[in-house]
Amino acid sequence: MTAAAHWPDLPPDHPFGVATLPYGVFTTGAEAPRVGVRLGEQVLDVAAVAEADGRVPDLAAAFGAPSLNRLLSLGRPAWRRARDWLTELVTEPRHRDAVAAHLVPLDRARLVLPIEVADFVDFYASEHHAANVGRIFRPDTPPLTPNWKHLPIGYHGRAGTVVVSGTAIARPRGQRRPPGVTAPTFGPSQALDIEAELGFVVGQGTELGTAVSVDEAADHLFGVVLLNDWSARDIQAWEYVPLGPFLGKSFATSISAWVVPLDALAAARVPVPGQDPEPLPYLRGAHPPQGLDIRCEIELNGTVISRPTYRDMYWSPEQMLAHMTVNGARLRDGDLFGSGTISGPRDDSLGCLLELTHHGTRPLRLADGSTRGYLADGDRVTLRAVAPGPAGARIGLGEVTGTIVPPR
Amino acid sequence: MTAAAHWPDLPPDHPFGVATLPYGVFTTGAEAPRVGVRLGEQVLDVAAVAEADGRVPDLAAAFGAPSLNRLLSLGRPAWRRARDWLTELVTEPRHRDAVAAHLVPLDRARLVLPIEVADFVDFYASEHHAANVGRIFRPDTPPLTPNWKHLPIGYHGRAGTVVVSGTAIARPRGQRRPPGVTAPTFGPSQALDIEAELGFVVGQGTELGTAVSVDEAADHLFGVVLLNDWSARDIQAWEYVPLGPFLGKSFATSISAWVVPLDALAAARVPVPGQDPEPLPYLRGAHPPQGLDIRCEIELNGTVISRPTYRDMYWSPEQMLAHMTVNGARLRDGDLFGSGTISGPRDDSLGCLLELTHHGTRPLRLADGSTRGYLADGDRVTLRAVAPGPAGARIGLGEVTGTIVPPR
Repeated sequence: MTAAAHWPDLPPDHPFGVATLPYGVFTTGAEAPRVGVRLGEQVLDVAAVAEADGRVPDLAAAFGAPSLNRLLSLGRPAWRRARDWLTELVTEPRHRDAVAAHLVPLDRARLVLPIEVADFVDFYASEHHAANVGRIFRPDTPPLTPNWKHLPIGYHGRAGTVVVSGTAIARPRGQRRPPGVTAPTFGPSQALDIEAELGFVVGQGTELGTAVSVDEAADHLFGVVLLNDWSARDIQAWEYVPLGPFLGKSFATSISAWVVPLDALAAARVPVPGQDPEPLPYLRGAHPPQGLDIRCEIELNGTVISRPTYRDMYWSPEQMLAHMTVNGARLRDGDLFGSGTISGPRDDSLGCLLELTHHGTRPLRLADGSTRGYLADGDRVTLRAVAPGPAGARIGLGEVTGTIVPPR
Repeated sequence: MTAAAHWPDLPPDHPFGVATLPYGVFTTGAEAPRVGVRLGEQVLDVAAVAEADGRVPDLAAAFGAPSLNRLLSLGRPAWRRARDWLTELVTEPRHRDAVAAHLVPLDRARLVLPIEVADFVDFYASEHHAANVGRIFRPDTPPLTPNWKHLPIGYHGRAGTVVVSGTAIARPRGQRRPPGVTAPTFGPSQALDIEAELGFVVGQGTELGTAVSVDEAADHLFGVVLLNDWSARDIQAWEYVPLGPFLGKSFATSISAWVVPLDALAAARVPVPGQDPEPLPYLRGAHPPQGLDIRCEIELNGTVISRPTYRDMYWSPEQMLAHMTVNGARLRDGDLFGSGTISGPRDDSLGCLLELTHHGTRPLRLADGSTRGYLADGDRVTLRAVAPGPAGARIGLGEVTGTIVPPR
């Protein structure tokens, strides 16, 4: 077992050191998938450790499940207890052998979709993104719609096509109407785009008719994934009036295999940039809203094409969750909501090709000399992100990657 | 056992006679919910019958499950086999005692949500409804958007708030902007509406990247429910630009407890009213598109306020399913899609109060002398529907009912 060489001798700034401890679901072969925790370049088989440990039988059962949903159902006190137990295991020398006995090298683990997605909602919480899109698609009207600063705009996406990082993405076919003609045509999308987002994983479901307040939201926010909301801009532009995006988005949404607990991101909480006008009371909590100081990068075929900054997002995760439930809509374990495209104020912090290339009219040049307006078949996109942790630690959010393949 | 008095001596035009045989999920008390089939005013405990019968072990297992999803996963050949077996049971005298031994009076059965809803999509397939809404909300533009006759417009709704008939509906709270003011207000919806729809229950999931053609769609269309897409028009009007309906719809969607197999509706298939322009090839099958001759009624506090006619719908169920998957979005067992509001061409065949009362400005008078623009607390809404069956039989679609209660 080479585990000891990597752990606990990980450099203090390793993004998957003892301050991160993200959850995933893995298998090494024929055995059923179960929960794992990433530690450096290894995966800790926490179901096995918990069973051997004997002190946390409820967690052992949850870790033995083929998704995180059972852990999600246990609620925040159990999530805290699980993290405290894990932190003790990986920091106290007396547990070293017990942990080392259950580490699996990352390259031997096959990571599967970590959650059974219940409902998937996608928000639109970057003012820069919403305004840029408005300027491109609706140049004759104000860039933000009148409702934008009053509520976190969102819509439901397709839960059944959320896939784990690494899944190939088939270029979608669909209807689109080329500029200047009346009738639509049909074929593979000619404007396939990415959207760099964070996804928030929800646990501890609620009863129908119950609103979750901004201050209660933390009890239902389990963790964060990186999310690529693949978007076919030509299909979307033709279909979305009046009921919103549908087939332009529903073919695939990729998430990272590792879910980073919100508790690992305490040092990354920062005030949101400022909300004016003041939101309605149901969107206010006891404290000012807080975003997350998470720095992302978008890599296309090996070239970093943008560095979106999550701290520039207008609405907080707690506000999004409170808004989503204020009408009494219940939450279920495994609900997932996306932040919307993370675009910052600068040209090098935009979160999608629509903005980066101005709807394909100003192509990007990649390191290999080629140019891209939108994605070509064979293109490989990877989103990565990192956040500050306690005492100089770095919190890695892993990566979400996908390669475009032609339609079947 | 009083079964024999009701069965098979049911009048030939009973809507739940031997030509209907809809599936639901029921319990009579503490025992786990299992599949039942309605026969007149009784529920046949088909898991028990199948177990005693011994010829259909795979169906017996599916019928013993707490939802129809296991049956949905088996696919059309098994659905046909199940229906043939059931038809033999309830029509051949030699099975009479075997059936009678497992009938439960309807008033002793508690009916639960019959499917675990995977993804929920809502379409907008009535030209009359779409045009009426356009005239009311966008009086200065053409009533139909330019895309409407080229594709079945749809969007994803919230699967987790689909509830069974009889569930109380709490009036949603939310943001709305009264006419003539700039800033929104917050409170219980003042424009709570119904939408009378059919829901189509999907089975035999597909792989990501696979489109289901119009001609293949029948293999994935298991059955039909009545669906009430409760809608808060004031919340919806303020939030829906640019990403579509969200909280104005997501608080609750009610479906009937009985799922009527498409195979029971063969005699109700009728040509759609006509599609001009001709749809793109992926929306065409080997035969002209067919709708369903289903007559609905909407009852509000005992007064029938409308009689919507499904045969006036523009897009066929097969076209909706083909469109939904043409981008490669996979289907899952338990996917549900709504037709959109069923509005016919006449004033007495409209499917929602928005149209029936012209957005509340022309209130309806009920039998008790009261008037309604939109729904009041305590109001009870029931949708019912019936279709022609073979040889003069009537096929009942049951009912979906809900009573409005104040927000918690």
